[in-house]
Amino acid sequence: MKQEKLKAIIKAMKTENVSQMILTDPANIFYCTGKWIHPGERLLALYINTNGETKLILNKLFPQTEELGVELIWYDDTEDAVELLSHFIKEGMVGIDKTWPSGFLLRLQQLKKECHYCNGSIIVDQVRMLKDTKEQELMREVSAANDRVMEQLIPLVANGYTEKELNQIVKEFYAKSGHQDVSFDPITAYGKSGADPHHITDDTRGKKGDSVVLDIGGILNDYCSDMTRTVFLGEASERAREIYEVVKEAQQRGIQAAKPGNRMCDVDFACRNYIEEKGFGAYFTHRTGHSIGIEDHEFGDVSSVNTERIKPGQCFSIEPGIYIEEEEIGVRIEDIVLITEEGCEVLNHVTKELIIVPMKES
Amino acid sequence: MKQEKLKAIIKAMKTENVSQMILTDPANIFYCTGKWIHPGERLLALYINTNGETKLILNKLFPQTEELGVELIWYDDTEDAVELLSHFIKEGMVGIDKTWPSGFLLRLQQLKKECHYCNGSIIVDQVRMLKDTKEQELMREVSAANDRVMEQLIPLVANGYTEKELNQIVKEFYAKSGHQDVSFDPITAYGKSGADPHHITDDTRGKKGDSVVLDIGGILNDYCSDMTRTVFLGEASERAREIYEVVKEAQQRGIQAAKPGNRMCDVDFACRNYIEEKGFGAYFTHRTGHSIGIEDHEFGDVSSVNTERIKPGQCFSIEPGIYIEEEEIGVRIEDIVLITEEGCEVLNHVTKELIIVPMKES
Repeated sequence: MKQEKLKAIIKAMKTENVSQMILTDPANIFYCTGKWIHPGERLLALYINTNGETKLILNKLFPQTEELGVELIWYDDTEDAVELLSHFIKEGMVGIDKTWPSGFLLRLQQLKKECHYCNGSIIVDQVRMLKDTKEQELMREVSAANDRVMEQLIPLVANGYTEKELNQIVKEFYAKSGHQDVSFDPITAYGKSGADPHHITDDTRGKKGDSVVLDIGGILNDYCSDMTRTVFLGEASERAREIYEVVKEAQQRGIQAAKPGNRMCDVDFACRNYIEEKGFGAYFTHRTGHSIGIEDHEFGDVSSVNTERIKPGQCFSIEPGIYIEEEEIGVRIEDIVLITEEGCEVLNHVTKELIIVPMKES
Repeated sequence: MKQEKLKAIIKAMKTENVSQMILTDPANIFYCTGKWIHPGERLLALYINTNGETKLILNKLFPQTEELGVELIWYDDTEDAVELLSHFIKEGMVGIDKTWPSGFLLRLQQLKKECHYCNGSIIVDQVRMLKDTKEQELMREVSAANDRVMEQLIPLVANGYTEKELNQIVKEFYAKSGHQDVSFDPITAYGKSGADPHHITDDTRGKKGDSVVLDIGGILNDYCSDMTRTVFLGEASERAREIYEVVKEAQQRGIQAAKPGNRMCDVDFACRNYIEEKGFGAYFTHRTGHSIGIEDHEFGDVSSVNTERIKPGQCFSIEPGIYIEEEEIGVRIEDIVLITEEGCEVLNHVTKELIIVPMKES
């Protein structure tokens, strides 16, 4: 068990009057134990009591070779794992991880009718949101590695690859540069595809004048990166340049608003208000960003409804965009920022000046 | 909505005294509507009432272009989707899909305290378990297509590929043969790797005498295949042959036991008892099989604890194995069977005679 993390969680549990928690999300269990266990459909649960008691209930199919610093409670497929877990649960409030499949929770509620249950994820989420010094360094490292992948990738857009081919190349870059994996399926979207935020990577090839949205990230030392650049193929029309500059300035305004004391929604407003002012409000169709750490998307949205105050140690994306389907153009610019005492450190350093990638003749 | 499926589900709900259900598993929603929607972390819910009322609650990010035959209730990211859903829910018992993230259920329980909640998945699971005539035909087709992939794959084991390379080749075979995807990450495991049921595909190359476990499946017309063959590289020792023949005979006995009237556990016992009798009981470490359909693993295990009677229309795998880590050998043989009125139809036709694949000199 990572004792500092456990201490922070128990402190937060006390504040929230939740005397016991059942953590079941593999990311939360990794956060506490330093060990990824992916149990699939089987039960995996870390029981934490504010009195310091901890147990990890896991299936015998996942033998652990390292000492995890927590008592391990084993079960096999013929046993009722929830019943086993229920023996450790005391009367009172039980915090439940929000992703726990309901089948398990309903069984537990049946077995322990005397308990009350609440969504306890927020407790761990808020601890995870504040990165400690070591985590901050890991976020810097993975973001710097992501910069290098992006810089390798941009010139390749010239080569006439399909979206799928480019997507595959990105994955290979991460594999070759020591990453454990990509942190999400890379977006490599030309023109019309980039204008559709839910486009699925296909066999489209870029054509002259296309915007090319490159939204990529990897996992290094268990921490995630995420960055977007939009480049243009062969040329950029006046209209494309106008849109690009609006997104670039909006993103810069978001970065300036990302500081302690401001609220998360202030970062969203800084981007959104500028885009609206320039007449593109209807085309910025998503939240401005999301927190990031051991998962690409973590708790703590940069959105108009998140009124939480920003705190030092937070790490999140700032990624405004403009998507106009009828003009077949999509532009998004995204960096990860780390909140400091006075403002924020931008963890990505790939240029945001407009780039036109020359087209090779086919 | 697929009216026949809806009718069968409502009939089962009445039997179980569950007057309303919230289906949230994308596979269950596909089963009812014929449409795959993958909402990620966002709420997607099909409300079904035994009075015939149905609603599909979904995020505006997932626009539907086809008519689904169900009233669509849209929400966006600024709305409380569970609150919206709660307006349709009447007093009484509410069946919940077992995979629904607890965060949603806890919120619903807070909003609708007057309701009772139960795991309702079993209702749909049992309907899904019995394939109708059209589904049976799709299971035959996807299994026949899987036979062709296996027959292409086996000779390639001669070429000295690493496990990862072989894994990639299998995926390409599925892509090229019109499959939508693989139904699970293919297992291509040499010797020691095949002896470890939780081995992760790596850069191992086969060596002379190795057992090679090939456990593969694809998705065609939304239905899944799954088959295992174990071949030997260059030669098979007397011991390897002995183990292979035990698994082969055990699997045959499982097939003979797969018929209406018998219980699911009888199929498991038929395999397990024979393997125990031959002295390998300790090395058959998993259940004998699983149901299959629109998902590779569906409800209805072939295990020692499943005492349900077998019914015509069921489709499941029969896949006994022997894994001896200290001898670096793993052997598994798996077919999909379809239960008929009298017995079962074996849907895979790749030979189960022991195959020795010649080794190319490196």
